[in-house]
Amino acid sequence: MTKKLTPALRAVKALTFDVFGTVVDWRGSIAREGLKLGKELACAPTGPRSPMLARRLPAGDAGSALGPATLTNIDSLHRRILDRILDESASHAGRGAEGPLEPRLAPPRPWPDALRGLKRLKKGYLVTTLSNGNVSLLTNMAKHAGLPWDCVLSAELFHHYKPDPEAYLGAAAMLGLKPHEVMMVAAHKSDLRAAQAAGLRAAFVQRPLEFGDPAKKDLKPEKTFDVNAKDFIDLASKLGL
Amino acid sequence: MTKKLTPALRAVKALTFDVFGTVVDWRGSIAREGLKLGKELACAPTGPRSPMLARRLPAGDAGSALGPATLTNIDSLHRRILDRILDESASHAGRGAEGPLEPRLAPPRPWPDALRGLKRLKKGYLVTTLSNGNVSLLTNMAKHAGLPWDCVLSAELFHHYKPDPEAYLGAAAMLGLKPHEVMMVAAHKSDLRAAQAAGLRAAFVQRPLEFGDPAKKDLKPEKTFDVNAKDFIDLASKLGL
Repeated sequence: MTKKLTPALRAVKALTFDVFGTVVDWRGSIAREGLKLGKELACAPTGPRSPMLARRLPAGDAGSALGPATLTNIDSLHRRILDRILDESASHAGRGAEGPLEPRLAPPRPWPDALRGLKRLKKGYLVTTLSNGNVSLLTNMAKHAGLPWDCVLSAELFHHYKPDPEAYLGAAAMLGLKPHEVMMVAAHKSDLRAAQAAGLRAAFVQRPLEFGDPAKKDLKPEKTFDVNAKDFIDLASKLGL
Repeated sequence: MTKKLTPALRAVKALTFDVFGTVVDWRGSIAREGLKLGKELACAPTGPRSPMLARRLPAGDAGSALGPATLTNIDSLHRRILDRILDESASHAGRGAEGPLEPRLAPPRPWPDALRGLKRLKKGYLVTTLSNGNVSLLTNMAKHAGLPWDCVLSAELFHHYKPDPEAYLGAAAMLGLKPHEVMMVAAHKSDLRAAQAAGLRAAFVQRPLEFGDPAKKDLKPEKTFDVNAKDFIDLASKLGL
């Protein structure tokens, strides 16, 4: 069962996971919530996986869309966008005078393989988040879904969002490891390339349904990544676990 | 089974745990290691729970002994003290010329009730560390012992060690909670009093064997604390879990 690992992979001691899109199906989860909310507001979005909310949220972990204004807390940015959409929706639905709505966003669901895969990976590696989402968001999500992180790291701790090298290097340093002893696991190639540029290893995980339609996602394995995996179970197998 | 909680306790959403002495028997663990090492070096310390190493380490979480020199990483401070003791021991044992010794410190053992208690407390509360130990130390210890933290918070993240208010307030803010929604759990009264001064709630847990001899420890329950408990099981019961 144990695969022969390359020397580079044998040196890896910790796996840092991108979360939104890689571990949890956040756009799908928001879409489900958006549909429910839309029905209440009589302004249902078009199509189950392209609700106006998910389309307008910045890519939580892809990072490129995040400007300096978001440096303190991504929750508050999401909340501001959500409030604006709700304001517009309420106006469209003629409910503008009824005061602010309190949205009830359910925590995003993990991809079907995530829990089982993480439990396997945890046997051989320290497993942690490395997300642009803030610590409280990541912690509450993990608690709700039972995600078995060894610790919860966020770009929030390093005052730099991915893809800034400080986020990746900060995570390695906080774990007491050298960059090459840490492997970033993500469904987004830009995240992985930035991690590699900072000296980390990179494992690409395909998430064909992140945008609903596999055709919308770049799923091609790349030789430049240390591992290319179909999901977390496949990743565990490819790491000899 | 469910106890009637006071309004103050009903507002608590997260428990932040002091670790060294409260969750793990670190002095006892170091003592055991010290005895082993002492035998190898032919300089066994006197008494099983008062080895020279444990006596000379600063109180990891009591905080009062920590000066600004330790602000980056408590691991390196411990390591420096350990190296000095090993140097002295090696000299005493006439082994000074054999080069540096690599100490093999086993991770400290949790107190017997810790795992079971934490699992119960986790059902009703977000449970996290709030220790002066650094994140990597706390994470590796938790992984080794199977401590089921929801996240791993350290004074390291707030650039202030306990008992500075910034450490307690930083933890509450990072969890997205108000200070009174967070309860510090500790076996050290100074830690709890500092938490209370910052606006947190406080649960005192007796650890009569922290210094080996119960007579050496202030174990008296105090009315000023929100909860006084014998151990984590008792704490869970007193919180209605």
